[in-house]
Amino acid sequence: MSRHEVMSLIAADLSHVEKTIGVDTVCSIDAVTEINRHLQNGGGKRLRPALLLLAAGACGERGDAAIRLGAVVEIIHTATLVHDDVIDGADVRRGLPSTNQQWGNQTSVLAGDWLYMQAFNLALRQRNFYVLDLLIDLTQMMVEGELLQKEWVGRIDINEEEHSQLVRRKTACLFAACARLGSIVSSGSDFEQPLADYGWNLGMAFQLIDDILDFTADEAVLGKPVGGDLREGKVTLPLIIALQRCTQEERRLVQTVLRDGNYTAVSVEAIRAIVKKYRGIEDTRERALKYTDTAVAQLGPLPESDYKRALHTVTEWVVDRDR
Amino acid sequence: MSRHEVMSLIAADLSHVEKTIGVDTVCSIDAVTEINRHLQNGGGKRLRPALLLLAAGACGERGDAAIRLGAVVEIIHTATLVHDDVIDGADVRRGLPSTNQQWGNQTSVLAGDWLYMQAFNLALRQRNFYVLDLLIDLTQMMVEGELLQKEWVGRIDINEEEHSQLVRRKTACLFAACARLGSIVSSGSDFEQPLADYGWNLGMAFQLIDDILDFTADEAVLGKPVGGDLREGKVTLPLIIALQRCTQEERRLVQTVLRDGNYTAVSVEAIRAIVKKYRGIEDTRERALKYTDTAVAQLGPLPESDYKRALHTVTEWVVDRDR
Repeated sequence: MSRHEVMSLIAADLSHVEKTIGVDTVCSIDAVTEINRHLQNGGGKRLRPALLLLAAGACGERGDAAIRLGAVVEIIHTATLVHDDVIDGADVRRGLPSTNQQWGNQTSVLAGDWLYMQAFNLALRQRNFYVLDLLIDLTQMMVEGELLQKEWVGRIDINEEEHSQLVRRKTACLFAACARLGSIVSSGSDFEQPLADYGWNLGMAFQLIDDILDFTADEAVLGKPVGGDLREGKVTLPLIIALQRCTQEERRLVQTVLRDGNYTAVSVEAIRAIVKKYRGIEDTRERALKYTDTAVAQLGPLPESDYKRALHTVTEWVVDRDR
Repeated sequence: MSRHEVMSLIAADLSHVEKTIGVDTVCSIDAVTEINRHLQNGGGKRLRPALLLLAAGACGERGDAAIRLGAVVEIIHTATLVHDDVIDGADVRRGLPSTNQQWGNQTSVLAGDWLYMQAFNLALRQRNFYVLDLLIDLTQMMVEGELLQKEWVGRIDINEEEHSQLVRRKTACLFAACARLGSIVSSGSDFEQPLADYGWNLGMAFQLIDDILDFTADEAVLGKPVGGDLREGKVTLPLIIALQRCTQEERRLVQTVLRDGNYTAVSVEAIRAIVKKYRGIEDTRERALKYTDTAVAQLGPLPESDYKRALHTVTEWVVDRDR
């Protein structure tokens, strides 16, 4: 399916999601409303609500519940970004100054708190304990992921299993929740498990591609400097793979960037060269493709529909994107 | 009633609250568990769960729901303290190094997030939407209070109404929620409104006494340096009152501390002298006593019981405490 065909399936609902986010992120404190508007206009891809809406559609449901929960997952995602940027000391996000950069860490901490509460506030209106259990568990798992990442920051010896745990917690569990929620809000057949597995695998692929883009992307398209992960002390899969194969001298270059937290002594090009030389990009991409293959396989039990085909198409977008 | 008599009413339930907090703040990430243990052993007065248990008792209820929600309100309170200390850059809390001081701001932000989620996780087990609405609204109101406080920091011209709004949001609304929850979990008569009003007035008094203690307390008893509010840029009621009556020269001394953020140029004793000279302490204390009088009056409709008498006694403790 073309991007236009996929988007036309959910365009109307997605604009309702946008409206809900706009209405429900107005706060009596101006700074919070400003931050929310800044983030809402910041070119977020709205991938998570789109996933939820497509999953709901694939279960034969289109309605207010999916729109409301689409807004909820996007607001939760935004809250985690605001706190993550505080943690990482990020300067830019999606090509714009990050919240902490523009409003300071203190306001950002509180604005993130406010957004979490607003997301639960909105979710509560659904009057569904199962949904609330899922969302709270999810949020806690994501926070634990950030904590683990923080604990492991600066480690050159992070292994694939540890990295995978971070990817699961940082990204895959939210994607899984979005797809699951699509089934949960549907009154028809129950496809919660296959959709959860679909979302989980899609999320794993999404994050691995993110890790690749941090090495390969065009900075102007990506909206932030490349090599940012390593500068922040995060060794991701493309580099983990390269480190397994490189020389001691090359390993020392990586260690230098980790130690310095900048590319002054060792250029970002030198690190990119190491990752490329040892097929870090290709092998990571291969794993991402395995995840999307697995994601597609989960769609088997779902009845044929445009929505199901769209979910299939989304797996291709995730690996083909350039930002 | 004596302290012993009051405590004996709720001692058993309070130790169950403690156990629940202990079990439910164990996290797979060690740092979070350590932070929680640090905070749990940090000499918190457990006033909020105690209030909830007494209110429930006054409504004829003693049971698991009150214990569980007692743990929930204490965990929410702890989460707000962790984030507040990040915002304020506090060094000590209850005589111990603050969380941000010991574990850093980044871990503290995430630990606070985790605690919020854990509180809601626990609250969700109650399977009561009304309780969840109340808790989420409450938390959001408290976060908005912190944001307002942050916006107003450093202002010498903060007025009584603005200060009152901060007190409501920072303290009174949580006290009101605790007392309300005592009625909500009770199967008997409905005393939600009088208990909410009782808690609200008690909380107002509690915070005003806190504001006084920041000027008058013995540092060793208080567990943190006196004069901390002004150093952090917060002009509280005792000083607001004094500023209405003092000379231009005295006002300039206050302004100097606000500008410098320390007591190098102007001593904390000089500021204490201004507050005392213009009856800032006495007049604030008088208002606190008005609040506790109003709190006591709200107890009228409740049937006579030891719990009701204990709620009365608590109003005396709040104004008579030295830390």
